[in-house]
Amino acid sequence: MSKLDEFALIQFLNHKKQSEELQQKLGVIKGIGDDAAVVQHSPGSQLVMTCDTMVETIHFNPYTMLDEDVGYKALASNLSDIAAMGAVPKHALISLSIPKHYSSSRLKKIYKGLYECANEFEVAIIGGDTSKSPKHLNISVTLTGEVETNQALLRSNAKVNDLLFVTGFLGCSAAGLHYLLEKQERHLTSAKLSLDIQPLVQAHRRPIPQMKAGRLLLESKRCHSLNDISDGLASEAHEISEASKVGILINEDMIPIHPTLRAYCDLVGKSPLDWILYGGEDYHLLGTVSRSNVEYLQSRFQRQGIPFFILGEVIDQKGVHIKDQYGNIKKIQKEGYNHFN
Amino acid sequence: MSKLDEFALIQFLNHKKQSEELQQKLGVIKGIGDDAAVVQHSPGSQLVMTCDTMVETIHFNPYTMLDEDVGYKALASNLSDIAAMGAVPKHALISLSIPKHYSSSRLKKIYKGLYECANEFEVAIIGGDTSKSPKHLNISVTLTGEVETNQALLRSNAKVNDLLFVTGFLGCSAAGLHYLLEKQERHLTSAKLSLDIQPLVQAHRRPIPQMKAGRLLLESKRCHSLNDISDGLASEAHEISEASKVGILINEDMIPIHPTLRAYCDLVGKSPLDWILYGGEDYHLLGTVSRSNVEYLQSRFQRQGIPFFILGEVIDQKGVHIKDQYGNIKKIQKEGYNHFN
Repeated sequence: MSKLDEFALIQFLNHKKQSEELQQKLGVIKGIGDDAAVVQHSPGSQLVMTCDTMVETIHFNPYTMLDEDVGYKALASNLSDIAAMGAVPKHALISLSIPKHYSSSRLKKIYKGLYECANEFEVAIIGGDTSKSPKHLNISVTLTGEVETNQALLRSNAKVNDLLFVTGFLGCSAAGLHYLLEKQERHLTSAKLSLDIQPLVQAHRRPIPQMKAGRLLLESKRCHSLNDISDGLASEAHEISEASKVGILINEDMIPIHPTLRAYCDLVGKSPLDWILYGGEDYHLLGTVSRSNVEYLQSRFQRQGIPFFILGEVIDQKGVHIKDQYGNIKKIQKEGYNHFN
Repeated sequence: MSKLDEFALIQFLNHKKQSEELQQKLGVIKGIGDDAAVVQHSPGSQLVMTCDTMVETIHFNPYTMLDEDVGYKALASNLSDIAAMGAVPKHALISLSIPKHYSSSRLKKIYKGLYECANEFEVAIIGGDTSKSPKHLNISVTLTGEVETNQALLRSNAKVNDLLFVTGFLGCSAAGLHYLLEKQERHLTSAKLSLDIQPLVQAHRRPIPQMKAGRLLLESKRCHSLNDISDGLASEAHEISEASKVGILINEDMIPIHPTLRAYCDLVGKSPLDWILYGGEDYHLLGTVSRSNVEYLQSRFQRQGIPFFILGEVIDQKGVHIKDQYGNIKKIQKEGYNHFN
């Protein structure tokens, strides 16, 4: 299923299946349709909940990921969704479906990575489920977070004339994946990688969820909309555009390109823009802010040492558009990230 | 992995991976090791969280379950864990890994069953994740609940001399599964089943989570320990025994046997006791209560029309024991439910 199908499918499966009364009675503030759900909690705060699954052969294989990285990334991708709501992470449940051929030492490595991530970002792992799997490992993580009442940063609040920003370089994860798939070496450790490729491989294997950036944006009270980039800039910009009923214009000249990404693209004859737009799993935050608040946010981010790049703007013409270096504007499709196929 | 392995594995993977300070800081009241986890919530209540996964070929196949039942049971098994804490269910996230060959109409049926269960028990479905799967469907549900502060019913509080009770007939689900596996007919609807087999097939396909019983037990403040029976009486009695550091003596003569189960066992030459002890997925509640409170609970259950059977007692001799009709006592092993293998 492509990501495009995914959105249609979720709509198809869930539309009008539950009364609004029931959802209201149960304190649902934001249900299906954002990075995470938000529900009523205690008087001053709301509970944020998200889940994300990694499936062997679909999201990883022995050529692309070390076992430790599988555990780390399974939680990191969920943390990214919590960051994209501006929330503070709290508790995780882990559901693991394990094929017979997985040794306990491989599972131990997966959990080593998982706990590395949990301890780094102060997440308590409080439970889960293990079951057999006929053939492939399936790891599903559910993560909660807490956010100040009605302050969660949604996709749906972008305003025409806002500027579009991102909190880091894009396309590196997809380039790292490309390298690993070309290399075709099982269980390739970092020690065996040349220094110049490491940033790309690390971006794919150990993405850094933008927890600080998410909280900074929420606390500033100046961020209009926010999304995490799990499926490439094009897809995520489309999500903001659709949820907010606005258009987005990306300025190609303003997209920052990581020097390692550029060097690798030159080497293998690929376009960085393709990976930036249609790669995925960069897990940076993409958001919008009114022009008058850009300077304030830029200086706050600078003080924290977090990148804050302006990429474009919010316009009233629906869809996502890109302006190239010659000033030509074209519409771009919501083509998501499809891993290996 | 057998259930026996599962407990050892969970211990192996999670033991001492996180500091108690971090878990305390994050308000963890009960982490790994009960039907569900409990964390601090608002001043008067705590949040209960659980997850449970169903994997095609491991937990179901086209001979045993209709698509609608897969969705229904995926949520019902989680509800059972919430019931076993005495909590009120609240919000669910659904993670679905979908093989290419699944049609959208099959997925629609799964979600039909899922929402039937959600609406029946007033659970709000608030989000989830969909991804591809190489071959088999994997559905993982995370469910939250709410419980009065420090009132959650744990496994670990059984006292010597307590009586052991169960809230319904056991072994029916395993017998229903046996029937369906013998029958070997794909997508066998209820309409095609003879009336006398339906209670067993229904017990397997649409188990009824004991939400009312769980709340009644909590509100009575007279239940010492509680567990749900997902893996057979033997395994669950062992869990209470181990968590509470007590022994359990089951009186074979006191185990109620559903008339349909008895008739089916006579027909196919099986022992009801085997399925009661080592079958699984009955999703009734197994608990302990002091002798002086049994009568009170019995009358409360009777008024609500919920079965309340006394099965045995809590003893100080470790392990789980069974006394047969001749008065002979033997130890029984913690052999769990292994579905198809």
